[in-house]
Amino acid sequence: MMNLSEAIRQVYKNVGNIENEGQLASYIPELANVDPESFGVFISTTDSCQFGVGNCDDKFSIQSIVKVLSLALAYKIKGGELWERVGVEPSGTAFNSLVQLESDNGIPRNPFINAGAIVVADVLLSNLANPRDEFLAFVRNISNNASIDYSPKIAKSEKAVGFRNVALCNFIKDLGNIKNNPCDVLDFYYDLCSIELTCKELSELFLFLANNGRKTADGEVILNTSQTKRINALMQTCGFYDESGQFTFKVGLPGKSGVGGGIIAIYPNKYSIAVWSPKLNSKGNSHKGMKFLEEFSTMAQSSIF
Amino acid sequence: MMNLSEAIRQVYKNVGNIENEGQLASYIPELANVDPESFGVFISTTDSCQFGVGNCDDKFSIQSIVKVLSLALAYKIKGGELWERVGVEPSGTAFNSLVQLESDNGIPRNPFINAGAIVVADVLLSNLANPRDEFLAFVRNISNNASIDYSPKIAKSEKAVGFRNVALCNFIKDLGNIKNNPCDVLDFYYDLCSIELTCKELSELFLFLANNGRKTADGEVILNTSQTKRINALMQTCGFYDESGQFTFKVGLPGKSGVGGGIIAIYPNKYSIAVWSPKLNSKGNSHKGMKFLEEFSTMAQSSIF
Amino acid sequence: MMNLSEAIRQVYKNVGNIENEGQLASYIPELANVDPESFGVFISTTDSCQFGVGNCDDKFSIQSIVKVLSLALAYKIKGGELWERVGVEPSGTAFNSLVQLESDNGIPRNPFINAGAIVVADVLLSNLANPRDEFLAFVRNISNNASIDYSPKIAKSEKAVGFRNVALCNFIKDLGNIKNNPCDVLDFYYDLCSIELTCKELSELFLFLANNGRKTADGEVILNTSQTKRINALMQTCGFYDESGQFTFKVGLPGKSGVGGGIIAIYPNKYSIAVWSPKLNSKGNSHKGMKFLEEFSTMAQSSIF
Amino acid sequence: MMNLSEAIRQVYKNVGNIENEGQLASYIPELANVDPESFGVFISTTDSCQFGVGNCDDKFSIQSIVKVLSLALAYKIKGGELWERVGVEPSGTAFNSLVQLESDNGIPRNPFINAGAIVVADVLLSNLANPRDEFLAFVRNISNNASIDYSPKIAKSEKAVGFRNVALCNFIKDLGNIKNNPCDVLDFYYDLCSIELTCKELSELFLFLANNGRKTADGEVILNTSQTKRINALMQTCGFYDESGQFTFKVGLPGKSGVGGGIIAIYPNKYSIAVWSPKLNSKGNSHKGMKFLEEFSTMAQSSIF
Repeated sequence: MMNLSEAIRQVYKNVGNIENEGQLASYIPELANVDPESFGVFISTTDSCQFGVGNCDDKFSIQSIVKVLSLALAYKIKGGELWERVGVEPSGTAFNSLVQLESDNGIPRNPFINAGAIVVADVLLSNLANPRDEFLAFVRNISNNASIDYSPKIAKSEKAVGFRNVALCNFIKDLGNIKNNPCDVLDFYYDLCSIELTCKELSELFLFLANNGRKTADGEVILNTSQTKRINALMQTCGFYDESGQFTFKVGLPGKSGVGGGIIAIYPNKYSIAVWSPKLNSKGNSHKGMKFLEEFSTMAQSSIF
Repeated sequence: MMNLSEAIRQVYKNVGNIENEGQLASYIPELANVDPESFGVFISTTDSCQFGVGNCDDKFSIQSIVKVLSLALAYKIKGGELWERVGVEPSGTAFNSLVQLESDNGIPRNPFINAGAIVVADVLLSNLANPRDEFLAFVRNISNNASIDYSPKIAKSEKAVGFRNVALCNFIKDLGNIKNNPCDVLDFYYDLCSIELTCKELSELFLFLANNGRKTADGEVILNTSQTKRINALMQTCGFYDESGQFTFKVGLPGKSGVGGGIIAIYPNKYSIAVWSPKLNSKGNSHKGMKFLEEFSTMAQSSIF
Repeated sequence: MMNLSEAIRQVYKNVGNIENEGQLASYIPELANVDPESFGVFISTTDSCQFGVGNCDDKFSIQSIVKVLSLALAYKIKGGELWERVGVEPSGTAFNSLVQLESDNGIPRNPFINAGAIVVADVLLSNLANPRDEFLAFVRNISNNASIDYSPKIAKSEKAVGFRNVALCNFIKDLGNIKNNPCDVLDFYYDLCSIELTCKELSELFLFLANNGRKTADGEVILNTSQTKRINALMQTCGFYDESGQFTFKVGLPGKSGVGGGIIAIYPNKYSIAVWSPKLNSKGNSHKGMKFLEEFSTMAQSSIF
Repeated sequence: MMNLSEAIRQVYKNVGNIENEGQLASYIPELANVDPESFGVFISTTDSCQFGVGNCDDKFSIQSIVKVLSLALAYKIKGGELWERVGVEPSGTAFNSLVQLESDNGIPRNPFINAGAIVVADVLLSNLANPRDEFLAFVRNISNNASIDYSPKIAKSEKAVGFRNVALCNFIKDLGNIKNNPCDVLDFYYDLCSIELTCKELSELFLFLANNGRKTADGEVILNTSQTKRINALMQTCGFYDESGQFTFKVGLPGKSGVGGGIIAIYPNKYSIAVWSPKLNSKGNSHKGMKFLEEFSTMAQSSIF
């Protein structure tokens, strides 16, 4: 851990000095109300060490990072059956997603593109009595953190401009792979994306994926080993949209980004690390976050490959 | 190793008993002249253990597996500059490859699709005085095996029906990313793909990728650590065409397949394992090979995730 | 006219005897409630002759045929400005429409694919005080037929299953080319498509397009000559979805089809002819209607080419 | 004719005064050696009138305009069977052509895109004893003009940079729709495209398409009426690449363009008109040629719609 915290400290300093390029996410109005200079990092290890720097205790909207958690719950509930509704292949480019949906009969290529996450939300809606509350309970339990909550303001802000998601959800409905009312599916989906966490909370929450699916606190099994490995594998191939290959190539860890500027990365059996800096590169991933993890992984010689 | 060899023995038996589905590669006539029941496995570990079963000493055409080696040599020669000529992203689907080439100005999505491997061959042609001989010397040195050679018969057989490769190479030439004469590039490319190896030889040859780029025999540095990790990362995201996500999801190791029915997989810092069974599934990957590695990775709990 | 009516009589008989292949439109439930054996033809000439056979006095849902009329009204109101919102090129294949929308920044390829007709509906909504009533008045005036009306039952039936249209409209909204609320646009669009006419009424209504834009009854100018020619030109290149080229090739007249099984075709300066038979071929055009017009155009040597 | 020649004279003057925008075709080096200010027009009517202005007696490379003639000969030889090898639908966009070839099993969308013209050349190669000579004889006979010839210099110039055509031809070969050796097909194809004509010769040569397939001189039947109408129909929907819809919309005549800057247009039963100005717009069609025909068709009220 000495090694890791020292590397974090040093890389944080290096990357803090580079130009803060990129743009705040503009498509969700509410996300623009954030300090663009924010930059935080937090690591939690499977042997119970923790270390953070910068704005690691500030809340931010985790957005698409939540797709890993909604997938985890849906996979836990449905097991292998889930993969009849959503694939496990990288999608190539954003560009392809609508075409691929048509040729793939409404089966999204993977659960981390919007189409796939919307189908996963539909699965949860069909299988939970009270989806909003039960999902929140699932997340709170994993992280022993009862304060985690949705942000109605963020959810509302996304819904107000969510024409593309309405398009996507209705297109999949037409292709037969949405079972509930598209409006209900999207309302739930916007809620999911609106969760706010600090880097510390995010790192703690995802630590079970570095720990073979078990909570470090009490050993409770959230997912079995095979399910955990497969979710990590999916983050490796599909976690960063069109930049998934780049992230794997340069960082060498499974991870997931969100347009709020957060990134989570997992080193199986070792740690989970959360980074947050809100300015996004042209692919929609945190500019400084990507830089940080690339340098960190090199300096700490911390890549699974 | 006990654990690994025992797992290999048992999974070999299990998978040997499943139906031998799939088809021999038909598009290269010469590849059809092979015993469809062949099935071999061989593992080599970084701590110098070896173990094989079945037809592990029979030669087969490694075909696309060679793309990892030609990439390794080109990366060694050109360093990071290489990535101006070829990308590191999964391609989504075979279907997209020509369209993507056009929108990406002739830069193939990654070095393991045919377009990318043809560009890599072009790079070698521009940078080696005697490409055929020097590439062979590179491969022979890595594996301390002077008997490795091209198969003129296989190369000729592929060339005779290689209309799609002629199309691809000339399309990239038109887009400006092939520097040599397309015919020369393809002749070299067909030679590369024609190399024949046994599972034992293949496993020995790829062991340096599990050993941070060094030969286990004498510690010679073939690639540096960063380059090695990045090639492994590329195999993880792009090694199995449209089934790359599936392989990562089910097997959880970086690997590469060829239409000769061979598959190589790497566990960094531990081992390289070669499997061969010539009947291919609908995605062009060895049917039994995929099954073997999936069961083996589960039984030996041997996934990097 | 002798020539035309005789040709109609004979071809009607010939085509009446061929197998009634194809399927009733199934995607709008209400459209399935129609006698599949219905088959009617009606011709109106610019020199005031009329002739009909078969079920030429039965009402049917004109569906997409209305897109010519909504385009006519929008073109009349906006003039050449309209073409900043919608293109005039054939779309190639249905398959491409969503991809093309993205690369074309939300400008549909032409006004006769759904995307284009939805944008035209949006234009009308922005430019008419009372769109539903004013459009109906426009149509009733052209044909001197005050009985023409919307079918609330058909509109409701289409709306209930219109997920793909919701997708399309919201996708264009996201791309910036829908100005009104997507729900309002679609409600108006469904109303437009629901109009019911007989072959006789349809033929009378479209006669102004064969008459340089003037009503034959009183010479009132609906569209000027240039606008009329251009709408006919658009029907020629884009009137039959993926079969537009086939229709031009085999029939050689500008025309437009609808999934209710109706087809209208125009011979400039001569006549308009309406055909109706509800079973559709695999491209969504009336099976018998296409056959009839092909044979009729050959027998009457009536092609503009 | 008075009307037509007067309109030509006046529009020639108007368009001669507009800015000579666009670029000379650059992809065939030899085509750049032409006076960019050249501008000629020639009309021939079915009742034996002729009229020309400007550079109407200068030779230019007709390039893709020849595709109408090679189609005419192939259609004459094979009849309706020809359409098993090539379609009659507009292709949407250049962008789509390779993807469409794959999904359409190597059947090009129409004979006027390069893919289609290459297949037509292949058909001629299979059905003529001496293709080069017999095609030339066919063309010379239609126009009673024994001086028409190939330009070896142009053919060689195109071949030297024809990587994309090599790609296309080999791709179709791989898909099974080229029967001869791809090199032979392309050599013949380059010869076809290299023919040089003046506006006068071009207009005379195409007059049979305005005359129901008969030569005006002696009434010899080149194509029957149905075949003639269908070729005209194909020019209407597919003659101008991505601008086919625009040309139909604005000019309202069947026509065909070439990258040499020539355009031919047909008014069935009336005339054929040839225009030449070598600077091309962004779609690859003559900038002034398009403008001329648009204004001419408006001024002479000469549109088939």
